[in-house]
Amino acid sequence: MIQAIDHLGIAVRSLDEAVPLYENALGLRCLGREEVASQKVRTAFFDVGGVHLELLEPTSPDSTIAKFINDRGEGIHHIAFRTDDIGGQLKQAAGAGVRLIHETPFEGAANKLVAFLHPKSTRGVLTELCAVKPGAEPKH
Amino acid sequence: MIQAIDHLGIAVRSLDEAVPLYENALGLRCLGREEVASQKVRTAFFDVGGVHLELLEPTSPDSTIAKFINDRGEGIHHIAFRTDDIGGQLKQAAGAGVRLIHETPFEGAANKLVAFLHPKSTRGVLTELCAVKPGAEPKH
Repeated sequence: MIQAIDHLGIAVRSLDEAVPLYENALGLRCLGREEVASQKVRTAFFDVGGVHLELLEPTSPDSTIAKFINDRGEGIHHIAFRTDDIGGQLKQAAGAGVRLIHETPFEGAANKLVAFLHPKSTRGVLTELCAVKPGAEPKH
Repeated sequence: MIQAIDHLGIAVRSLDEAVPLYENALGLRCLGREEVASQKVRTAFFDVGGVHLELLEPTSPDSTIAKFINDRGEGIHHIAFRTDDIGGQLKQAAGAGVRLIHETPFEGAANKLVAFLHPKSTRGVLTELCAVKPGAEPKH
């Protein structure tokens, strides 16, 4: 079952420019930064009433985030839904005709298993499903 | 202070096509529909752990949602942050150099006061601030 919106991924050119915007204009507090080498991004994250905003800065021109920014500019990149059954949720989505980018969840940041649904079959919304790894505590 | 993410606005061509996607592929339940004549949209909304997803279908070709879909395709349109002081929050944003689309909050759907920040000064993220009207209960 989907339990919550886990986070929103927001593509930015520079964390050093974007973090002060969220801090100064909205009064949010940056909780930390993390590099996710597998995704070729650096992230900075904020908590807003239990939902994380994750600013995503590409670390390489062939990062999917760099390509997104080149194609569409900075902006909201994906919605991540937290579920207690990521395998079942992927099966449900596939059964409803949704194309899966990942048929099997893989290990993302913060001790989570993640998988993405293809935005061409979710009406333009890049949709992530994520779940805390069995036996693990989420890191943030 | 910003208290929570109130809702995410998602631009869709057709509620009748998009609502079943969220119901069948993600297992979410549509809580209701509402027409917001002033914004020239029909909305359908879902609750996900306290955050609403609001699907927005244009009711007119000159709706801002119709223009968004024409320019960028369907997808995530805006993030709305709930605050207990919308006037103060707008002042803070303006003081940090953010361009305001609305200098004064106006009455939106669901008994809320709302105002938007311009995405050109928020790194591509159309940002809504909203607050429950003094003395009113939010309708949903």
